[in-house]
Amino acid sequence: MEFIEGSITSPRGILAAGVASGIKKNNKPDLALIQINGLGTAAAVFTSNQVKGHSLLRSLNLMKEEFPVRAIVINSGNANACVGLQGDRDAEEMAVLTAETLGICPEEVFTCSTGVIGIPMPMDNVAQGISIAASALSQDEYAGHDACKAIMTTDTTMKEAVTSFYIGDSEICVAGMAKGSGMIHPNMATMIAVITTDCVVDRDFLQWSLRQVVEKTFNRVSVDGDTSVCDTAVIVSTGLAENEPIGFSGNRELDDNARAFLRSLESVCMRLARNIAADGEGATKLIDVRVDGAADAAAAYKVALTVARSPLFKTAMFGGDPNWGRIITAIGNSEVPISPERIDISLGSLKVCEGGAGLPFDEATASDILRQDEIIVTIDLNSGAYYDHYWTCDFSYDYVKINGSYRS
Amino acid sequence: MEFIEGSITSPRGILAAGVASGIKKNNKPDLALIQINGLGTAAAVFTSNQVKGHSLLRSLNLMKEEFPVRAIVINSGNANACVGLQGDRDAEEMAVLTAETLGICPEEVFTCSTGVIGIPMPMDNVAQGISIAASALSQDEYAGHDACKAIMTTDTTMKEAVTSFYIGDSEICVAGMAKGSGMIHPNMATMIAVITTDCVVDRDFLQWSLRQVVEKTFNRVSVDGDTSVCDTAVIVSTGLAENEPIGFSGNRELDDNARAFLRSLESVCMRLARNIAADGEGATKLIDVRVDGAADAAAAYKVALTVARSPLFKTAMFGGDPNWGRIITAIGNSEVPISPERIDISLGSLKVCEGGAGLPFDEATASDILRQDEIIVTIDLNSGAYYDHYWTCDFSYDYVKINGSYRS
Repeated sequence: MEFIEGSITSPRGILAAGVASGIKKNNKPDLALIQINGLGTAAAVFTSNQVKGHSLLRSLNLMKEEFPVRAIVINSGNANACVGLQGDRDAEEMAVLTAETLGICPEEVFTCSTGVIGIPMPMDNVAQGISIAASALSQDEYAGHDACKAIMTTDTTMKEAVTSFYIGDSEICVAGMAKGSGMIHPNMATMIAVITTDCVVDRDFLQWSLRQVVEKTFNRVSVDGDTSVCDTAVIVSTGLAENEPIGFSGNRELDDNARAFLRSLESVCMRLARNIAADGEGATKLIDVRVDGAADAAAAYKVALTVARSPLFKTAMFGGDPNWGRIITAIGNSEVPISPERIDISLGSLKVCEGGAGLPFDEATASDILRQDEIIVTIDLNSGAYYDHYWTCDFSYDYVKINGSYRS
Repeated sequence: MEFIEGSITSPRGILAAGVASGIKKNNKPDLALIQINGLGTAAAVFTSNQVKGHSLLRSLNLMKEEFPVRAIVINSGNANACVGLQGDRDAEEMAVLTAETLGICPEEVFTCSTGVIGIPMPMDNVAQGISIAASALSQDEYAGHDACKAIMTTDTTMKEAVTSFYIGDSEICVAGMAKGSGMIHPNMATMIAVITTDCVVDRDFLQWSLRQVVEKTFNRVSVDGDTSVCDTAVIVSTGLAENEPIGFSGNRELDDNARAFLRSLESVCMRLARNIAADGEGATKLIDVRVDGAADAAAAYKVALTVARSPLFKTAMFGGDPNWGRIITAIGNSEVPISPERIDISLGSLKVCEGGAGLPFDEATASDILRQDEIIVTIDLNSGAYYDHYWTCDFSYDYVKINGSYRS
C-alpha cells in the first residue's frame, strides 16, 4: 500500500480547520473542526479505561444510537474529564454550538477533548474557537494539517497518513491523523485518531473493520503502559467516491474490495500507531518487541506487552545497554507459562541469549544496533506457533521531565 | 514493638562477615557469610518470577527437603542467573566451599546471588571471598553491618532492623537485613532479606509466619513494578534463647507467644520493606498508596498496586505536581470494577477529588504536602469495607540514569 501526499481533507467532501481558541496558553492551536459532507457513515472505538471523559462518553452514546457524523469537534488543553455534571453539560454545549454554526443537529456532532483532567472547560474559549474554526473550514490540504496541529499536546511531530486505491473506476481515499505521544497521558488524556474516507461503505462493516485494525495497530503501542480516559479512534465516510458499496458478503465474508479497504485502513492506522510510539514522550527510539514461538495467541500478546511495558527494559534501551537480562526477567514476569530454558533473544540480528542462557557477543556490534532509531527485539519462546508484537519507545530523562510537571 | 540497636548478629549464636572478593570493581564488599549455630531451623520465600537464578533454585530445592540451615552465603555483583548448567555447578561449588571451610554439609548451606544476569560467576573470586569471610566471622554487631554492606547493589542506605520481646524469662531477638533498592532489578536481581532469631520455633509455623509477613511487607513494595529472578527472603533460628517452643496450638491457632513472635517478625520486615521503597533507585520520596472502601480484598490490592506502578503517577510525585488525574486514570485502568463517580482522593490530608470530580484546592498547601519525604495518597472507592496499601517511590531523572547504563 502506497502512501500519498495529503491530509484528512484528501477524501472528497471533507473540510477541516485548526485554530487557537485560548484554551492553551501562548496562542497555540487547540481546537480542530472537521465537517463531513455526504453520507456521514461513522464508526468509533473508545478507551477501555473505566473512567471516561465527558466529551468521550457523549460520543460513545451517539455511536450506540448509530447517528451519522457530520462534524467532529476536538479541543486539546483540557480533557473535559472528572468534572461532574458540568462536564456533560459542556460536552453537549460544544456539540450544540458546532451544530448551530454548521446548520446540522447536535446529535450529528462527535465530540473529543484531550488535556488536563479535573478542571472545567473554559467554555468561552471553546465557543469562540468553534466560531473561528467554522469560518476557516476548507478542503485545502493545509486545513487538514492545521486540524492535526490543533489536537497535539506533548506530541513533537504531526502524525498523518493518506492512501488511495481503486474500486472499479472509483478512486477511494483513506486518510488519518492522530495525536498521543504517550499511550497514556491521564492528564493529557491521550490518543485520538480521526480517519476520513470517501468510500461508500456499510456501517456495520466499517465498525468491524475499525475494531480489527485498531487491535492490530493502536492497541499494539505502549509508551507508558496504560490507557487514558479519552482514547478515541473514529472513522467517518462521505461516500462521495460513489463506488459500488462495500460491506460483508454472505456469511460475513470479505470480497476483494472489502479486503482492499481493510488493507488501506490498516496501512493508515499502522503508520499513525508507529509514529505515536516513535514520538513517545521523551522517546529517542522506536522499539518493536516481537514474540514468536508462543503456545497460543494470548501468550504471545502477554509476553510482548510485558516486555514493552517494563521501565527497566525501556531505560536500558535509552542507555544503549544490551541488557537482555531485563528482557528475560520481564518474560518471567508475564504470568504466561514459559520454559525459561527454551528462550532465545536477539537484539536486531544479534542473538544474545539462547536456550535461556547468555551467549558471548560483540559489545561494539550490540552498541551499533542499539544506537539505531529503530530497534527490533525478537523473543522466541520455542513453545508453539503463535506470534505477536508490540511497539514501544525508550524511557529517557525527558520522559521524567515532561511528566514531572505537566500540569504546571 | 520497639526497635533496638544491633544487627543480624544480635540473636544468640549468629556470626557474620562481609568482605570484598573482587566480584565487584573497586574493592567494594560483595560477599556476605552468616553462620547459624544451634538448631538452624529455617524457612524461606522465593520470587514468583518463572525465571529463577541458579543459586536461588538450589536454595529452593534445599528448603523443600527441610534441611537445617547452618550457613548462608550471599554474593552481590553477579546474579548467577541465565548461564545454563554452569550456573547450577557454580551454586553447588559455593555451597561446597562454604561447607568445607565451616565443617558442615553442603546441604546445610543456603546460597543467594544478586547482580548482573547472564554472565558466569567469577568462581576464583567467590572462593577467595568465602575463605576470607570465614576467617572474619564474628558475633560483633559490626560484623552484621559488614554483611549488610556486602549484599548491597544500587542501594544507597543499609537496611537493618532488630527487635526483642520476652517469652517467660527468655528474651527473644529477631533481627533482619535486606537489600534491593528497586523491587526489580532484573539485572541486579534484587530483593534479598535475611532474618535471624534465637527463638525456639517450630519449622512449619516459621514457614507459615514468614509467608504471612512477606505478603504484608515485602509484597507491598513496588519500585518499578516487577519481581526479579533472585528475590529471596529467608529466616533462620539458632533456638539458643531456650524459650518454651512456639508453634501452632491445636487447630492451627496462635497463642500469645506465637502472636508476639509474629508481631516482632512483622515489625522487622515492615521496617526493611519501607526502607527498600524509600531507597528505590533514584527515589526522593516514599509514597504510601492507601485504598479503602473496596468491594473485596482483591480489588483493594489491585487498585493500590496499579496506582503504585504507574510511571506517570510516580513522575508527577517526583515533580511535586498534585496531579490526581493520573491517580484516577490508573484506578480506571486497574481492571477492578469501580464506580468512578464514587471515588474520593486525598493527598496527605488534602482532599482533591470527591465523587469522581475535582475539588478546588490550595496549590500552596498541595505543594507543601508533596515536598515531604513521605506522601500518603488515600483513595476511597466508597464501594465496600476492604482496605489495602502499597509502598512505592517517585520516579526521577536518577532512576533513568542508574538504569540506562547499569551493566556498563
